[in-house]
Amino acid sequence: MPIETAFTRKFDVKVPIVSAPMDLVSGGALAAAVSGAGGLGLIGGGYGKANWVDAQFREAGAQRVGIGFITWSVQRDPGVIDIALGHKPAAMMVSFGDGEDIVAKAKAAGVATMWQVQRLEQAAQAAEAGVDCIVVQGQEAGGHGMDRGLVSLLPSVRDLVGKDTALLAAGGIADGRGLAAALMLGADGVMLGTRFWASAEALGSEAAKARLVSTKGDETVRSKVFDVLRDVDWPQNYTGRIVQNDVLRRWHGDLGGLSQNLSAERARYLASDEDDYSTRVLIAGEALDLVGSIEPAGDIVRRIEAEAQDILARAPGFLR
Amino acid sequence: MPIETAFTRKFDVKVPIVSAPMDLVSGGALAAAVSGAGGLGLIGGGYGKANWVDAQFREAGAQRVGIGFITWSVQRDPGVIDIALGHKPAAMMVSFGDGEDIVAKAKAAGVATMWQVQRLEQAAQAAEAGVDCIVVQGQEAGGHGMDRGLVSLLPSVRDLVGKDTALLAAGGIADGRGLAAALMLGADGVMLGTRFWASAEALGSEAAKARLVSTKGDETVRSKVFDVLRDVDWPQNYTGRIVQNDVLRRWHGDLGGLSQNLSAERARYLASDEDDYSTRVLIAGEALDLVGSIEPAGDIVRRIEAEAQDILARAPGFLR
Repeated sequence: MPIETAFTRKFDVKVPIVSAPMDLVSGGALAAAVSGAGGLGLIGGGYGKANWVDAQFREAGAQRVGIGFITWSVQRDPGVIDIALGHKPAAMMVSFGDGEDIVAKAKAAGVATMWQVQRLEQAAQAAEAGVDCIVVQGQEAGGHGMDRGLVSLLPSVRDLVGKDTALLAAGGIADGRGLAAALMLGADGVMLGTRFWASAEALGSEAAKARLVSTKGDETVRSKVFDVLRDVDWPQNYTGRIVQNDVLRRWHGDLGGLSQNLSAERARYLASDEDDYSTRVLIAGEALDLVGSIEPAGDIVRRIEAEAQDILARAPGFLR
Repeated sequence: MPIETAFTRKFDVKVPIVSAPMDLVSGGALAAAVSGAGGLGLIGGGYGKANWVDAQFREAGAQRVGIGFITWSVQRDPGVIDIALGHKPAAMMVSFGDGEDIVAKAKAAGVATMWQVQRLEQAAQAAEAGVDCIVVQGQEAGGHGMDRGLVSLLPSVRDLVGKDTALLAAGGIADGRGLAAALMLGADGVMLGTRFWASAEALGSEAAKARLVSTKGDETVRSKVFDVLRDVDWPQNYTGRIVQNDVLRRWHGDLGGLSQNLSAERARYLASDEDDYSTRVLIAGEALDLVGSIEPAGDIVRRIEAEAQDILARAPGFLR
């Protein structure tokens, strides 16, 4: 029997599993594969490159997919929002900043909206903006985020916003156990990044994906090193969870030193091989321990759904 | 119907809820109240003060309670282990370091053993030591810990150690939603700190407890500031989750500066009123959002059990 929640009803999908809009990784093929398996695939609108967004919607073809943006970045060049809305996405998601204007625009276009939050204090604003869904992202997540763990933040957001807003749990989830647990904590579904990054359809090199499979969650860390190094102007409170490497170990505790040596370090970084992950950034979350192989995204959706169905059906068995 | 798990069977308790052995907070009265309600109460052996431990076992009276120690600290003066074992505790728990010798001693005395881990790489050693239970502590927890979030660490530890070792989930859990979610992720029960710190029986001032109720999880942070300030010699990789205050904000990003001003800052700290939490440390976890009042510990156990029973019974209702 399908897992039915406020999210599946509001977003008209069969499975409460969403692929995260990972910048340059979540292209149209991945989003279409996730939607094709009954979930909801999101194109990674990221920092807002219009040509790339157009190309990925074309890549998704007739499949119903959504898109997500980095709020503070896309607001610098908001034209890409209109371009995305022109593709009639299944959902538009904002994250990292005050997304009220984007949400209002999407709502006016009749597009379902999602707002990702990282701290409890952000959830009230998202709810007031009238979004259809709040994504609650724990610090376990790969890529940018903040400091709070999912297991207490999620039920706290539920208590704050009440029953009318759908919630997705994000960060550290990669299997049916995580989906079932998220539902117990008050979520209506899950958003997965790392698990879909390690999929056949994700955009990225084979070398990067091979490293995802061989790396453990203990080896990831939240840091600002690669934002400084790559000159990406993230607001102060956000860090990015990435896989530790030589560059990270050198500068993680010494951002001041990195700033003083920035032009040389940046040159060295850009001169390195793109698949040399002792130097290059590899973005991934703590869920890496739960990722054993690169699989088609549709298989991932179907397996997680089946695992969660089994766990939910057996839950009363704890009561003797 | 009772929630029955490998933990309730191995430790012969009715409810899979354990109170964390919080140093100077978890005295005999709290432990006895938790055990009296069907859970398992642990005395906070902490850094290993023999007189205090003796007094707390006496305080617990005839109630069956356990005890937990800070591994690296108690190993400097291991006599207190024998003193604790002389009280025939219901369980002995170690955390923060290599606890093999203590576990071996407890096992030889016929005492059930628990080993708390914070990273996946630590779980194999705990399992090899033959402990009855591994406590998986997420970074959400109050007090000392490490960096990994519970939601991915817990199922990863389950996958690593197999089915034979009981697991408790710790960090960020304070209600029945958290207990039900922990069971879905592969745990056999939960260990709660912050929720029992905000109980009538916890040792601590009314002012401290009042602040627990008025503070949000967003206001907590992991830091080494108060270990440096209080001259507690914690190994490098551990931080303590505490409530932000003026002292924390001043030094959190400048531990080097704190070291240079240490004698003056320490004198100022020690001269402050013990209930002046703009200066003094207040230890608490992210679960603060889920703590609404100071309650008797037995009521907390019974309410969380009832909430989890209800959620588990209704879990198949997600399947339509």
